[in-house]
Amino acid sequence: MTPRQIHSTISVKQNSTATEDTGYVVGVDLGATNLRLALADTSGVVIAKWGCSTVGVRDADEVIMLVKNGVESLLEQVSAPRHALKAVAAGAPGITDVDAGIVIATSYLMGWRDVPLRALLEDAFNAPAAVDNDVNLAALGESWTGAAKGARDFVFLAIGTGIGASVIVNGSSYRGRDWAAGEIGYMLVPGTPTIPGNHGEPGALESVIGGEGIKTQWQKLWSAKGTALPKDLTATQIFDHALAGDALAQTILEQTARMLSYAIYNMALVLNCPLFVLGGGVGMHPALCSETQKMLGQLNMRSEPQLMRSALGTDAQLMGALRLALDTVNSRPGLFASEGSSRE
Amino acid sequence: MTPRQIHSTISVKQNSTATEDTGYVVGVDLGATNLRLALADTSGVVIAKWGCSTVGVRDADEVIMLVKNGVESLLEQVSAPRHALKAVAAGAPGITDVDAGIVIATSYLMGWRDVPLRALLEDAFNAPAAVDNDVNLAALGESWTGAAKGARDFVFLAIGTGIGASVIVNGSSYRGRDWAAGEIGYMLVPGTPTIPGNHGEPGALESVIGGEGIKTQWQKLWSAKGTALPKDLTATQIFDHALAGDALAQTILEQTARMLSYAIYNMALVLNCPLFVLGGGVGMHPALCSETQKMLGQLNMRSEPQLMRSALGTDAQLMGALRLALDTVNSRPGLFASEGSSRE
Repeated sequence: MTPRQIHSTISVKQNSTATEDTGYVVGVDLGATNLRLALADTSGVVIAKWGCSTVGVRDADEVIMLVKNGVESLLEQVSAPRHALKAVAAGAPGITDVDAGIVIATSYLMGWRDVPLRALLEDAFNAPAAVDNDVNLAALGESWTGAAKGARDFVFLAIGTGIGASVIVNGSSYRGRDWAAGEIGYMLVPGTPTIPGNHGEPGALESVIGGEGIKTQWQKLWSAKGTALPKDLTATQIFDHALAGDALAQTILEQTARMLSYAIYNMALVLNCPLFVLGGGVGMHPALCSETQKMLGQLNMRSEPQLMRSALGTDAQLMGALRLALDTVNSRPGLFASEGSSRE
Repeated sequence: MTPRQIHSTISVKQNSTATEDTGYVVGVDLGATNLRLALADTSGVVIAKWGCSTVGVRDADEVIMLVKNGVESLLEQVSAPRHALKAVAAGAPGITDVDAGIVIATSYLMGWRDVPLRALLEDAFNAPAAVDNDVNLAALGESWTGAAKGARDFVFLAIGTGIGASVIVNGSSYRGRDWAAGEIGYMLVPGTPTIPGNHGEPGALESVIGGEGIKTQWQKLWSAKGTALPKDLTATQIFDHALAGDALAQTILEQTARMLSYAIYNMALVLNCPLFVLGGGVGMHPALCSETQKMLGQLNMRSEPQLMRSALGTDAQLMGALRLALDTVNSRPGLFASEGSSRE
C-alpha cells in the first residue's frame, strides 16, 4: 500500500455520553474515490467520523488496512478499547452477495471480483461484520432516518458517475436471483443507445444521464451551439446554470429529466411503487428532481409516484452502514464472544 | 341480457371418479370475448369445461348470469347438487384488488370500474369466491402445473391484444401499491412512441408489439414494400409466414422480438429474474420466443433470463382460477357453512 497518499480526517461529536462500558459499531462507506467511516454507540448515536482518499487504491487488503487505521483512530478518539467494537458493516460499489458476504463485482473504477469482504473485516476486527451493495445501504439509511422514513415500499435511485437503484419491498431490499436487482444503469429507454457495451463499462442509461454522460451531452451541445459558459462543466454545474436561466444548460437538464422520467416510469410500471428517492451527487440536485417530476406528470400515469430528494445526501450510505452494523450486533450478538468485552 | 347470443359448449371427462359426496370447485376465465369455466373436484382433477361468447356483454350482472348458467350446466353434467360447489374463483382482464375482491378497472373492451366481482359471485353461489387479475392467474396456473412448475421467481408475460405481466417473487404474486404491478403494456423502450395515450387506450409498448400493434406494423410495411401476402393478416399468421421464409414477415417478427427483448431486458434489470414465461395468443408463438431469446443474447447481459413458452396455452388462466378456487376452499372452509352440504 501507499500510506503517503492517505490524508485522513476525523471529526468527533463533543457531547457524547459514552462511558467505559459503552459498545460501538462502525459503518464503512467504501467508494471509488473515498473511504468514509462513522462510529456510533449501540443506541445508534453517531460519535465520530473519519475519512481518507482511495484514489489509486484497488487491492482489497489495502482497503482493509485503511479501514483498520480508521477504526483505530476512531476508537482512540473516544478512548475505547478494541473489544468495545461490537460490529462493522460496509457498503461496496457493486453487486454483493449479502448471505456469503462476498462482493461479486464492482464498477470499472475498482474492478473487484468475488472479494470476501465480510470475512476480511471479521478477521481484521474479530467482530461480526456485514456487507451490502452501497445503493442498498443508502436506501437503508434513508429508510432509517431520511426521506423514506416509515415507507414500506420505495425505490432509492442513485445517480452519480453511474446509476443504480435499490428496490425496497415491504420494508426489505428486493435482491433478485444474483443479487443484481435494480441495475438500471443499463436500462433501454427512448434516446439511449441500443448497442450494449461490455460488462463493467457504463450502461445505456448512465452513458447518457450519469454524471459523465451528462458532461458528454453538454460538450456535444456546446460544440454545436456555442455559449458563453465553459465547455468543461460538471453535471451539477450544468444544472446550476440551468436554474440560473442559461438556455443551453436548460436543454441538457430537460433531456436528462425526460430520460430519467422514462426510467422511473418503466420501474413504476413493473413495481407499482409509490415513492422514488433520488440520491447521489447528480441525483440530489433540486433542479433535476423538480424537472423530472414535471416530465413524469406528462406521462399520464394511473398512479404517478412521488419523487423526493435524499435527505441524508452524501451520508446516506454511511448511515445505512451504521444501521446494518447495529442490526448485525443484534442478530449475531454471541458470535465473537470469545474475546468478550467487560460488559459481557 | 341477451340469452339468444349465447352458444355454450360443454365437455366432460369420461372417467371421473366422483361420488355423491364429492365437493367441486369452479374456475372462471372471464375474457373480453369469451367466458370459460372449468369444474374440478377438490383434489384438483378437472372434470368438465364450459364456454360461451361474451361479445356484446359488458354489464357485470349479465356476466354473473352467464357464469351461473355455466356452473349449473356443469353441476348437472356430473349430477351434483348445488351445495357440492365449495368455491369459485375468477380472473378478470384488469387491475384487481384481491383483498377487497374488486375489479378496479378493465381494458377498453370491457370498461369495468370498481366492480365487486367477489361479492357478486358469493351472492350468486352462496359459496366462498376469490378474484384476481387474469395474468396473475395465468402465472399461478403455469406455476401450479405448467412451464414455471417449481419456480419461485419468474415473470409471466402475456401478449395478446394487450400486454401485461405478472411478477412472481418467492412463490407469490408481487402486486404493488395499487394492485397494478406488471402493467408493462405502457413501457417505453427504443422504438415506442413517447407521447402517452389516455387511460384504457393501448399503451406505448402494446401499440407496437401487441396483437393489434403488430397488424398495424405489417400493414404499414405492406403498403410501403408490397408482397404477395395479403394485407389483412393476424400477428400469428405473420409469424407463421416469417417461419415459412417470407422476408417481409421476418422483418415484422424481428422488430417485434427486438422490442420485446428490450422490455424483458428492462424488467430483468429491475427484478434480476431468471425466468420469463411467454403466454397469450401472440406471446405463445414459437417463432417469437426463439427470436426474442436470440435478441436478448445480443444485449450482453450479466445473467440472461431464460424464456419459455407457456405450457398451458389458452388454459393457463383457467387452471390458475381452479388453483385459486382450491386455495379458497382451504383458506375459508367454514365461511359459507350455514347451507352445509351432506358431507358436513
